[in-house]
Amino acid sequence: MNTLSDIGEDALIRRLTTLLPLAADPAAGPGDDCAVIDPGENSPTLTLLKTDALVEHVHYLPDAAASDVGWKAIARVVSDFSAMGGTPDRFLITLALPGETPVAWVESLYQGMAACMTRFGGLLAGGETTSVPAGSAKVISVAATGTVRREHLTLRSTANIGDAIFVTGTLGGSIRGKHLTFAPRAEAASWLANHAKPSAVMDISDGLAKDLPRLAAASGCGFRLDPRAIPVTPGCTLEQALGDGEDFELLITLPPGTIPRLSQWPAGFPALTRIGTITAADDSDNLTGGWEHFGKY
Amino acid sequence: MNTLSDIGEDALIRRLTTLLPLAADPAAGPGDDCAVIDPGENSPTLTLLKTDALVEHVHYLPDAAASDVGWKAIARVVSDFSAMGGTPDRFLITLALPGETPVAWVESLYQGMAACMTRFGGLLAGGETTSVPAGSAKVISVAATGTVRREHLTLRSTANIGDAIFVTGTLGGSIRGKHLTFAPRAEAASWLANHAKPSAVMDISDGLAKDLPRLAAASGCGFRLDPRAIPVTPGCTLEQALGDGEDFELLITLPPGTIPRLSQWPAGFPALTRIGTITAADDSDNLTGGWEHFGKY
Repeated sequence: MNTLSDIGEDALIRRLTTLLPLAADPAAGPGDDCAVIDPGENSPTLTLLKTDALVEHVHYLPDAAASDVGWKAIARVVSDFSAMGGTPDRFLITLALPGETPVAWVESLYQGMAACMTRFGGLLAGGETTSVPAGSAKVISVAATGTVRREHLTLRSTANIGDAIFVTGTLGGSIRGKHLTFAPRAEAASWLANHAKPSAVMDISDGLAKDLPRLAAASGCGFRLDPRAIPVTPGCTLEQALGDGEDFELLITLPPGTIPRLSQWPAGFPALTRIGTITAADDSDNLTGGWEHFGKY
Repeated sequence: MNTLSDIGEDALIRRLTTLLPLAADPAAGPGDDCAVIDPGENSPTLTLLKTDALVEHVHYLPDAAASDVGWKAIARVVSDFSAMGGTPDRFLITLALPGETPVAWVESLYQGMAACMTRFGGLLAGGETTSVPAGSAKVISVAATGTVRREHLTLRSTANIGDAIFVTGTLGGSIRGKHLTFAPRAEAASWLANHAKPSAVMDISDGLAKDLPRLAAASGCGFRLDPRAIPVTPGCTLEQALGDGEDFELLITLPPGTIPRLSQWPAGFPALTRIGTITAADDSDNLTGGWEHFGKY
């Protein structure tokens, strides 16, 4: 009998989404960083929807500071909205926790959430707490609505052959702490939407080695990657930069004609580094896992 | 050190909601069946937001049919939208499951979800699957948006002294199976919104003994309950009707002047039974738990 571990997340989602009545919105549906709902052509904005969960032992360890866990739970959703060109609006928080959880832990979790909402926007609209059996992992599920100006929407499926590929910040080593305390690239995404109009954006949550092929495939394209250009977090290897995941940096494609506008990239913003070029699908580098697949370069 | 088990859900939510930036919408915020967002005075509709989770061993047992679990996960949210006078729009599904979960179980879960969406409306907009450690309980978290016509919105906080209290269907015994296969009272709620304009509505999820005092308190009122009038599920005791929970029937208050309109209550709809009257807060019956507190009547 096949189990979830056998088939993996991407294959599971492909199978499941054929079973449910699916929203027919042009830009919506599973696969991008958020679902996109069009309220009607008279609306200057589109609605974004996102759900994202943190699981103890999977997304954080039991000894992590609860306030950092709370920050991360909100920041991951903000990062997804940023990758679509939008901002958070309302949050719904579901906590599934063992009854033995200290109240002080939950209050600290909420203080971390509050700090992130205060910095990046968004308000609590509601939520739920429920118990899980003693010994079960804690699950923190965050759902949120967001807003994006129609002309600022950036998908992962709209890169074009010849576009330049950029990343913000540095990649790798997130597990040393950044995965709990990272700042979503909200300001950078907003600047790009207003000044350089990227052809595609996504956030790097599963590692460049997994997410760049996803962006290219969603766009019906391939990519050429310059491994020497990848901005590696100091102290990390290139393998770690490709495969560690949870970088929460932005992966951006820009039409060649817009690259000169990056000369205005504000001081104090994270580094913006060109790492490659979008190609035709049949002319792509091959980057399906971590470094072992990358060895051919 | 205080734990969640020590203080209970209502007290926890009261403490937590002081910590986060809270939406200032007139009708929004934690406490009602859904959060309510006003898109602006030009909109004839309001947006509803809801999140609700099912936990294995807590909300269903491991031997429950996965399709029933999927039906219940969606039906609980539909019931909340019905209680506000609205209908579901978009669903986000988060599954936190052990890797050893059979793929067939998850497909059956989704088929149950699909059956409920097909009957009551709503479309899948997106979701997420994540692993939990082996041995941890499954968590199925559903977030959804809904829509309600502005004039149809029914809160739990707007009952008035002298209003009649009604319930749909029968109460008690849900654990024998109805909690997995119940039909949300969507048609009944819609009829009431169009024909009788209730002063307040909520769905009964934690038992009449817990939910009627909540409705009265939210409205700044009390209640008088006629225990002999409570429609008890055949084979159940009055204690069970008061305390079992997960009835997912509607608890409705109606101004006395609108009661005659119930003579048009459609054939084939669930029974609608008057069980009491809203009173002043200082003239209330006392019903704080199950039957033991109810013994004084």
